[in-house]
Amino acid sequence: MSSTETLYSDLIARLRRLQALESVAELLGWDDQVNLPPGAAGQRAEQQAVLAGTVHGLAADPVLGERMAALTSAGGLSSDQRAVVAEAGRDFERATKLPADFVREKAAHSSRGYHAWAKARADSDFAGYAPILETHLELARREAAYLGQADNPYDCFLDLHDPGLTAAAIEPLFAELAAGLVPLARAIAGSAGADAPPRAFLGSHEEQKEFCRDVTARIGFDYNRGRLDLSLHPFCSGSGDDVRMTIRFTAGDPLSSLYSAVHEAGHGLYEQGLAPERRGTALGRNAGMAVHESQSRMWENFVGRSRGFWRFFAPRLRPPGPGGPPSAEEAYRAVNRVKPTLIRVEADEVTYNLHIILRFEIESRLFRGELAVADLPAVWNERSAALIGLTPSTDREGVLQDVHWSGGAFGYFPSYCLGNMIAAQLWEKIEGLRPDLAEDFARGDFRWLLQWLRENIHAAGRRHPPLELVRRVTGRPLSPQPLLRYLGKKYGELYRLAR
Amino acid sequence: MSSTETLYSDLIARLRRLQALESVAELLGWDDQVNLPPGAAGQRAEQQAVLAGTVHGLAADPVLGERMAALTSAGGLSSDQRAVVAEAGRDFERATKLPADFVREKAAHSSRGYHAWAKARADSDFAGYAPILETHLELARREAAYLGQADNPYDCFLDLHDPGLTAAAIEPLFAELAAGLVPLARAIAGSAGADAPPRAFLGSHEEQKEFCRDVTARIGFDYNRGRLDLSLHPFCSGSGDDVRMTIRFTAGDPLSSLYSAVHEAGHGLYEQGLAPERRGTALGRNAGMAVHESQSRMWENFVGRSRGFWRFFAPRLRPPGPGGPPSAEEAYRAVNRVKPTLIRVEADEVTYNLHIILRFEIESRLFRGELAVADLPAVWNERSAALIGLTPSTDREGVLQDVHWSGGAFGYFPSYCLGNMIAAQLWEKIEGLRPDLAEDFARGDFRWLLQWLRENIHAAGRRHPPLELVRRVTGRPLSPQPLLRYLGKKYGELYRLAR
Repeated sequence: MSSTETLYSDLIARLRRLQALESVAELLGWDDQVNLPPGAAGQRAEQQAVLAGTVHGLAADPVLGERMAALTSAGGLSSDQRAVVAEAGRDFERATKLPADFVREKAAHSSRGYHAWAKARADSDFAGYAPILETHLELARREAAYLGQADNPYDCFLDLHDPGLTAAAIEPLFAELAAGLVPLARAIAGSAGADAPPRAFLGSHEEQKEFCRDVTARIGFDYNRGRLDLSLHPFCSGSGDDVRMTIRFTAGDPLSSLYSAVHEAGHGLYEQGLAPERRGTALGRNAGMAVHESQSRMWENFVGRSRGFWRFFAPRLRPPGPGGPPSAEEAYRAVNRVKPTLIRVEADEVTYNLHIILRFEIESRLFRGELAVADLPAVWNERSAALIGLTPSTDREGVLQDVHWSGGAFGYFPSYCLGNMIAAQLWEKIEGLRPDLAEDFARGDFRWLLQWLRENIHAAGRRHPPLELVRRVTGRPLSPQPLLRYLGKKYGELYRLAR
Repeated sequence: MSSTETLYSDLIARLRRLQALESVAELLGWDDQVNLPPGAAGQRAEQQAVLAGTVHGLAADPVLGERMAALTSAGGLSSDQRAVVAEAGRDFERATKLPADFVREKAAHSSRGYHAWAKARADSDFAGYAPILETHLELARREAAYLGQADNPYDCFLDLHDPGLTAAAIEPLFAELAAGLVPLARAIAGSAGADAPPRAFLGSHEEQKEFCRDVTARIGFDYNRGRLDLSLHPFCSGSGDDVRMTIRFTAGDPLSSLYSAVHEAGHGLYEQGLAPERRGTALGRNAGMAVHESQSRMWENFVGRSRGFWRFFAPRLRPPGPGGPPSAEEAYRAVNRVKPTLIRVEADEVTYNLHIILRFEIESRLFRGELAVADLPAVWNERSAALIGLTPSTDREGVLQDVHWSGGAFGYFPSYCLGNMIAAQLWEKIEGLRPDLAEDFARGDFRWLLQWLRENIHAAGRRHPPLELVRRVTGRPLSPQPLLRYLGKKYGELYRLAR
């Protein structure tokens, strides 16, 4: 064996051990949200802190750095191998800049934060939660400083979720999107269109969960390598052969669980589509959260809110509902009502993006120091009125609604909106290649689409930065125009808008 | 701060980190049995191997050994501190003798073994499982050799579960017990006693689980610091603020889930009674599995199968059953039928111990090399006929019924029978102190008993070896006679046996 091969094998073995321990920490995070007894939050924070310290020890091991330096100087690597080494080098550099004490402190606070948020949300008590959030922000600022980005801490977290992304790159994309969305939402609100309330055609929680399982299995989620559970906030976690999704039930909104399930299954299909034998390397890792959200939002909306989807699933609803199952057209219209809501995860396709723009604005201002934590509820409510046209009456429906900040995950929200744009741009490409995709769906056949995503997105792993991946696959730089065209066409027809 | 205090604090911090990582591995084991998708067994084995290697690195860290040596030579330790250092020294010595590669290999095989057993049990396929068991035995022999006990490997594993215990110490206790039990079981079988079949007074799985929750909460299990779930084989896992119990439902035996729940709650009450702030040290750790089983078997049988217990719970059964709830006496007789069964966890109090004696015999012979894995089913069936009077018709009801060996847990079974003896000896002491305990129970008040166990057993932690703890608390060495007296009196009355 050549020296390069030996060095490379050793690197891969180290990365796999690291990934195995990271996946244990992720499993504990899942358990936090699905199983943890209320009284165990402190004990769990201690476990997470010790585990984070251990992971950090492996991630910042000087021997790892030496091996990578030796590999780079030895040369003779394939382009895949170079991508692996480059990505591992990036992670190593980040890890070595963070002190172990800081990593443990942050992990403990993230674990505690979730339980504090869950309690605050139940009680709609922002004041009780504010000190936790203050600490999260302070930890985030310290982290950015350790990483040499004290001057633009928000970019530091954007880059963490989506390599290479900056607030400066996002701003014009979001501005262009908003410029198109706001008139569309206004036109819909002023129309006499198809705004009939949805029939409550989904049944008991047990029946809803069964239907969610049926639908997600049919679109391709492999339950031999994954699960579906309940939690306060829907999420998808895990990788490889153990991908776990959660949903929740919302009183009065029987579709909420279904669309959470299809969304999380989009994440799950991506993770199940990454090469398990390449776990822990750039070749077996997702391309960042914007691409991840492009998968979840595509399955949720472009597939799950399409006529073809409902041609197959409307007759299969359980229970069928009073007077038999709805027609496909009835279901299609019910799931595509545009009606502003306070809750992001229940928003329609048009106004959803405004929820994200609100969060992006607030995060930007928080990190620029233009906004204090204590002022968050008031600013949230004011921007909600301006952007969405609704003012939360409680913080539970406002600033406390999302789980992300409770674990210190700043800079994640923009991924959702970028994901919508990426999904739309991929969808234009896909429709060009397979014009009768709706006929596939109407037969309950989602294999062509999944296979295309597997080959073009999942198989790429993290070889390229997200915007570069989009450009390679679609032939164009990322733009909000495909999303605006898709929404304009779909909702123009549904709401009989003048063109 | 004196040097001794500094050294001692450092030792405690190290032990706590170690315990935190060990508790993560234990949580993964719980997840294996409660949640793991079937296709994830390989990935989980890898996680467990990496985690075991990490735990081993901390446990065998030479710095840990140096600190303990320095502490011992520095002197000035309290007796509690000496107990902590001695116990930690024992663990350290064991860890340093085991190579890291071996520890990882064993962890991976234990994780894989559970899933192989679950499949083999479902298919009643011993032949498919035999190679896994062979490897477990080979790993056990290697482990004993590393620990310098190649000549008596079985003692090595007995000692692991119950410090200081040996096969030579167990044999006369079991022989004396069997000499008393066999005639009692025969007398019961030949009697015209109260052998009426139990009324199926427990309801759906959901209702059974609710009743299990009610009962276990009433006897003192704190659900703020624990959970109850379903698994293939009932067990209790975790410690401190996160203790997790499981039950299963057995078709045709509505009492099986209840008595699993009360048994596991006995373990859970013990773990919840250990001082959380002393986690990871001899002061906050259980005294071994025999004492652990004394707690579970006491709550299951001495409490859960008593008249006082049923005076409180019979009117509270849900659903009450046809014709209203049973009388306390009816329920008492139904749950105390002596009827040999093939399945250990469903056995009555009298014949249960014969199931353990069978397993002790078989494990002893396996480790003495007198029995090959391939011959296990035949020998199991033959000994089952001789001791219990029943021959399994499938291996599922025979040698494949128990989970223990699937994780490499040899030498655990004797703890159950020793636990029964310890429970009976404690019970004689308790009844002397509190003659009207049955009246407490009839009021649904289990606090006095729990408090006594907290003060006398739980608070002791692992300061003493198990047999020494029993001697200290009861004033006598462990003997099977209290158990024989208890069973003789209880079943003599129930089955109207001549005295």
